[in-house]
Amino acid sequence: MVVSTINGTSPLSHSNGTTIPLSTFSCNSFVNVEKGDPVAFRPYWEKVRDECTVEIKGDEWMSYLGDTNNLCWYMVPQMRDAILRLHNVVGNAVTKDKFLVLGTGSSQLFQALLYALSPSESSHRPINVVAAAPYYSEYKDATDILQSRLFQWTGDAALYDKDEPYIEVVTSPNNPDGTLRVPVVNSGVEGKIIYDLAYYWPQYTPITDQLDHDVMVFTFSKCTGHAGSRIGWAFVKDIEVAKKMIRFVQLNSIGVSRESQIRAAKMIGVICDGYKNLKSIESDHLFFDYSKRLMKERWEKFKGAIEKSKVFTLTKYPTSYCHFNKDLFEQYPAFAWLKCLEGIKDGESYLEKLKIRTRGGGRFGVDAKYVRVSMIGTEDEFIELCTRLSNAKRE
Amino acid sequence: MVVSTINGTSPLSHSNGTTIPLSTFSCNSFVNVEKGDPVAFRPYWEKVRDECTVEIKGDEWMSYLGDTNNLCWYMVPQMRDAILRLHNVVGNAVTKDKFLVLGTGSSQLFQALLYALSPSESSHRPINVVAAAPYYSEYKDATDILQSRLFQWTGDAALYDKDEPYIEVVTSPNNPDGTLRVPVVNSGVEGKIIYDLAYYWPQYTPITDQLDHDVMVFTFSKCTGHAGSRIGWAFVKDIEVAKKMIRFVQLNSIGVSRESQIRAAKMIGVICDGYKNLKSIESDHLFFDYSKRLMKERWEKFKGAIEKSKVFTLTKYPTSYCHFNKDLFEQYPAFAWLKCLEGIKDGESYLEKLKIRTRGGGRFGVDAKYVRVSMIGTEDEFIELCTRLSNAKRE
Repeated sequence: MVVSTINGTSPLSHSNGTTIPLSTFSCNSFVNVEKGDPVAFRPYWEKVRDECTVEIKGDEWMSYLGDTNNLCWYMVPQMRDAILRLHNVVGNAVTKDKFLVLGTGSSQLFQALLYALSPSESSHRPINVVAAAPYYSEYKDATDILQSRLFQWTGDAALYDKDEPYIEVVTSPNNPDGTLRVPVVNSGVEGKIIYDLAYYWPQYTPITDQLDHDVMVFTFSKCTGHAGSRIGWAFVKDIEVAKKMIRFVQLNSIGVSRESQIRAAKMIGVICDGYKNLKSIESDHLFFDYSKRLMKERWEKFKGAIEKSKVFTLTKYPTSYCHFNKDLFEQYPAFAWLKCLEGIKDGESYLEKLKIRTRGGGRFGVDAKYVRVSMIGTEDEFIELCTRLSNAKRE
Repeated sequence: MVVSTINGTSPLSHSNGTTIPLSTFSCNSFVNVEKGDPVAFRPYWEKVRDECTVEIKGDEWMSYLGDTNNLCWYMVPQMRDAILRLHNVVGNAVTKDKFLVLGTGSSQLFQALLYALSPSESSHRPINVVAAAPYYSEYKDATDILQSRLFQWTGDAALYDKDEPYIEVVTSPNNPDGTLRVPVVNSGVEGKIIYDLAYYWPQYTPITDQLDHDVMVFTFSKCTGHAGSRIGWAFVKDIEVAKKMIRFVQLNSIGVSRESQIRAAKMIGVICDGYKNLKSIESDHLFFDYSKRLMKERWEKFKGAIEKSKVFTLTKYPTSYCHFNKDLFEQYPAFAWLKCLEGIKDGESYLEKLKIRTRGGGRFGVDAKYVRVSMIGTEDEFIELCTRLSNAKRE
């Protein structure tokens, strides 16, 4: 997103929600890479736009109910089938013998899980919710917003030393820093683990394992780039946990938009059909090939800019074998995690002066010399970001 | 919804989510009028199905953002315009000088409002949430599910006598009993009022006033019957309340499905266009005319069945002048609220024996001799309901 500070107007918007990037940035315009709106993949969806068209008639999908034969009664069968097919194609998660719970984005499922994994006896103290720093900036507020007696944010998992029950959120690849994660709490008490796998898709990271955890959360937003649809899902081993999550979603929003489910099912179908008909089509037609190439190109350009600037260092990522792509690959995270060199104490403020809006380390539970930068915005914005970063000088 | 107990199967379903009603009920089948799935109006939407078609292409509506110039940044301008236009056509609410906050159904907005209207100082005791009994069966659980320190369910507003701050929910017309409501708490302390106006539409009740309260909540589900879309909205006078609600929706689900917004805007547009072109078309083409006639016919048939049974009494409703229809009308609530005559202590159990599934008074904070019956299910189910009720005999 580009916000002009000259006249206060946003970039021109089509009536269909696509934003026309301004072709040049004035020197007073901010490059806003603070949020993670995943619009980078839009050019792919433009190419296949007609193939992906969904049409919904006036009398379709009116009911609250999606499938009364499914525990997750608000999920339509097409959505369920598409999700299972996608994981079968990508091979990133074991879906067998698990319950599939649909949510209004993974944010809703995060809260449903806190509810479902907390002890229900009211005499109990709130369960501690932790994640290793740097952790996703919204976990804390999402946990504490209603000041629940069931759970409470307790901060950095690496520092957790209480002799009390806990929930550890393991985000892998991690937001903000892209690292692959495992649980870190070392406690005598048994903890419950939520695996937030929003970025465990082939464009961001080699698919090294078919993960098989008790609680795994995914989101459509970061997989295909359709953040506006608000579709997330969780695979859950324990039926009682799944039932409590579904009850939460019922009270919270009486299910999940049927229109979004139908559309997400269609888009996922187009992706999977591509891999099914692999030999008959050009590889640029394959979504994960396209999006991985795009991420790779951006990261190469970005590393060049960072090297030129001599002001920041970047996280180093290992190369691993990707079972999906059948080759060795590096990681190309959705966010870059920059560390400012000595002399710059507050990276966010420093970059504000360069008219680059980022999210500072404090929001992620670490030092202000770190900043998070979105790598999945528009192409125009990304190019301008690289230009500005490469011109950065030590103060 | 019809649930067969013979072979455990549901009614046949089209792939587009429309349910083909079974033309005859076996005597072992339940008539399920326990929920309020508003599918009664589907025949109208079948007639205008093509006019209402929305088409969404692969690259459209990808972003989290709907309108960065609006406080409610996830709401697309089309949705905002459609909602304002609808209230302008119906005349049921004053929208001027209020903030419009969109939610994933009105359930999400209810919780957003509890958060926004609670005192934020953590030293404070939880604010009491009350509603006059009989009250909507989900308010209690929706309030208490996370055991918040900000608010707590305190029950019947008519019995509230604490000298403490409170939030009163005024549902008008009321779910379950269809009565028109005003606040009832009589306390020395100032309370905050949430007007839940889900049923304040011309098919259910005369539009007697253009309401102008500080907090008014509406839902698309009960207005047009599109419950699957999960679209609700609130008009809020105080910008600080609106901001807190939007922050809640952000943390809860990062906004509201863009696909649902586009579709809801389209459907509302078709309704409003009808009234704009009033003289050029047959009145059966007008949504509120169609749906009011349907509700009236059902209520007449239903009253006949109840009279025949001699087992129940019904709530009496006044006749009022409707500013929208420019005539005197009775109310035709979305639910019937039955009181069993003496000798039947538990209405829900009594009706279970007649293979009618209802929701008993206990769920609404009153005696078990009351039951709530949906009047907005399929035609087939409704006819069978009347047949079974008219055969009811005193035990």
